[in-house]
Amino acid sequence: MTQILLREDRGAVATLTLNRPEALNALSDAMLAALKEQFRALAEDRTIRVVVIRGAGKAFCAGHDLREMQAARQSDDRGAAYFSDLFARCAAVMQAIPALPQPVIAEVHGIATAAGCQLVASCDMAVAAHGTRFGVNGVNIGLFCSTPMVALTRAVPRKVAFEMLTTGEFIEADRAREVGLVNRTVPPEDLSAEVQKLAAVVAGKLTAAVRTGKRAFYDQAGMGLGAAYTLTGAVMADNMMWRDTEEGVAAFLEKRAPDWA
Amino acid sequence: MTQILLREDRGAVATLTLNRPEALNALSDAMLAALKEQFRALAEDRTIRVVVIRGAGKAFCAGHDLREMQAARQSDDRGAAYFSDLFARCAAVMQAIPALPQPVIAEVHGIATAAGCQLVASCDMAVAAHGTRFGVNGVNIGLFCSTPMVALTRAVPRKVAFEMLTTGEFIEADRAREVGLVNRTVPPEDLSAEVQKLAAVVAGKLTAAVRTGKRAFYDQAGMGLGAAYTLTGAVMADNMMWRDTEEGVAAFLEKRAPDWA
Amino acid sequence: MTQILLREDRGAVATLTLNRPEALNALSDAMLAALKEQFRALAEDRTIRVVVIRGAGKAFCAGHDLREMQAARQSDDRGAAYFSDLFARCAAVMQAIPALPQPVIAEVHGIATAAGCQLVASCDMAVAAHGTRFGVNGVNIGLFCSTPMVALTRAVPRKVAFEMLTTGEFIEADRAREVGLVNRTVPPEDLSAEVQKLAAVVAGKLTAAVRTGKRAFYDQAGMGLGAAYTLTGAVMADNMMWRDTEEGVAAFLEKRAPDWA
Repeated sequence: MTQILLREDRGAVATLTLNRPEALNALSDAMLAALKEQFRALAEDRTIRVVVIRGAGKAFCAGHDLREMQAARQSDDRGAAYFSDLFARCAAVMQAIPALPQPVIAEVHGIATAAGCQLVASCDMAVAAHGTRFGVNGVNIGLFCSTPMVALTRAVPRKVAFEMLTTGEFIEADRAREVGLVNRTVPPEDLSAEVQKLAAVVAGKLTAAVRTGKRAFYDQAGMGLGAAYTLTGAVMADNMMWRDTEEGVAAFLEKRAPDWA
Repeated sequence: MTQILLREDRGAVATLTLNRPEALNALSDAMLAALKEQFRALAEDRTIRVVVIRGAGKAFCAGHDLREMQAARQSDDRGAAYFSDLFARCAAVMQAIPALPQPVIAEVHGIATAAGCQLVASCDMAVAAHGTRFGVNGVNIGLFCSTPMVALTRAVPRKVAFEMLTTGEFIEADRAREVGLVNRTVPPEDLSAEVQKLAAVVAGKLTAAVRTGKRAFYDQAGMGLGAAYTLTGAVMADNMMWRDTEEGVAAFLEKRAPDWA
Repeated sequence: MTQILLREDRGAVATLTLNRPEALNALSDAMLAALKEQFRALAEDRTIRVVVIRGAGKAFCAGHDLREMQAARQSDDRGAAYFSDLFARCAAVMQAIPALPQPVIAEVHGIATAAGCQLVASCDMAVAAHGTRFGVNGVNIGLFCSTPMVALTRAVPRKVAFEMLTTGEFIEADRAREVGLVNRTVPPEDLSAEVQKLAAVVAGKLTAAVRTGKRAFYDQAGMGLGAAYTLTGAVMADNMMWRDTEEGVAAFLEKRAPDWA
């Protein structure tokens, strides 16, 4: 039996591959459960410092599994309970990404649509191959991308998001970078190398600093200026007390590499 | 007598034309009242799916009607009550745009200054002719654009807004697109066609999905991630229960056009 | 004895020069105290309308003074109380910038790193020389830039900030303008002239309008749309009652320059 979600650990970098290429890696019940399970495991995994999410085959991810959703209409309530539960499960998976201790990088190629675009927007960083197309195009079939909108509107300017949501039209990788949806764009043949390079850079930092910083990043995001400074000031003062940070600062002043265990 | 605000309905698209070209379509009391009245009518209009706002003559809109404001100083309170009421009425008109069920597109040419720039920022989307100039330049006459600032700062990065507000200097259409104030820029001779094309795309979607989505768009904008997902998850689950959405999903899976009444 | 922070007033523009070029203008205790003192004085200074912050020597500012921080580890608590106090003092200086009545422009060259990048992000506007590099690179030495993050994440898109914070990599001036961290970029030899030109434009506006507008700018930033309009509507109605604004509007309508005392 083929696994729906592959995980390959190389050093401190775990790569999750959505592995339903015949369905453009749609987020079926099984895929959402597998992602949830992997995120749960990664949250406890002290050896992994960076997580990469990519898709097998022609596309990154085409969103929800519409066949499965349509099949749920056979139940007595015409699927009502299933749909409520589905969107709650999907939202939990998306919110697990900023909640993970490790930075998560989306490696995006082909298309990233609907909940697939939401997945890109939910990741901490994203690298896209030239030619990749991003869309929140549920509106084309009468299903407005209301939950993908939550992640998208927190990543790109308001008018850009509104146009994507109501026209269902795609934007390409370079425009996605311009508006803040992805960090870097590269030729398709360089995509994996660029992602691994970015992952290696982050994985090379002091793990505790990255973990603490990521948590503070999202914690302070919605706060007023004063509260955000109170929180982050305490985080930095604590950070300064770590032995590894003392060594890092000393090494910098002595123009040598830090000796981190 | 010439109408100050023209409305032309073509299919499902209503086009409002600010029609005081001799005053660069300034937002006089009469113009604000006419906009309020049209927005009220459009909110109840089930046949209209997209609204376009444009200006007659050389400019989109040059902001408030300064002659009328200056005349109000003749009253016993030197205009104090009038000014309070004027800015409240104007703010209500601006807030009516995100509150409208239909997406609203600004079709912008010439200049959009002060409350005219606020009107662009308040629309859901905007298309501008190359060469259009945008400014919040009240500071040049000692009247800081404090209310236009509300819409502008929610559309563009903070430092961009601050510079426009305190220098009174213009930005051109292409920079406006780069910073998120407009969605598309086109040659002046293509402006109306491009707007109508965009409007037709949105008007071709399932009306209820667009309406529901627009409302959720603004409702979730200021929420934390958890609350935003709770809201939009419920919206999407409900959206899935609609007969037209069931048909839209089915048609997609069967690779045919949906049969929407 | 050389002064650590120079102040030169030219007309209505005060220029503060961080003057520790041998330490890349690091924000030592003395530098933070000097900035605090100057900001306190400027807040009361009715003759100054614009403030410029620049750095002497090769760089704008390289952040905190790591030697001084490391020395604080000699105390009984290994520096804990000092670090808490330091980040609180630094945060107070950063927050004093939006709280100042005058617009503050960062004139940036060379590098702006860690708290130096935070200083740029905290200023109301920024102009950078081509080739200037911006980074929040504390992560490289095990000290995540948690407090700089507060200012940075309020100036640039989320994914851009996350990448800078976790990779420690620099962005150059043109990318900094694209993402909203700076307003203008110019050749190094034109930097001071461009900043003085920008400062002169703002200084030439009605002082009370700029001061009132700057305060409202930050007051309304975190509010919902309704509350923001209530606040700014009152600000604008009050603004209209000023004698100088009455003259400014009259002059505009009569196509002449305002006669402001």
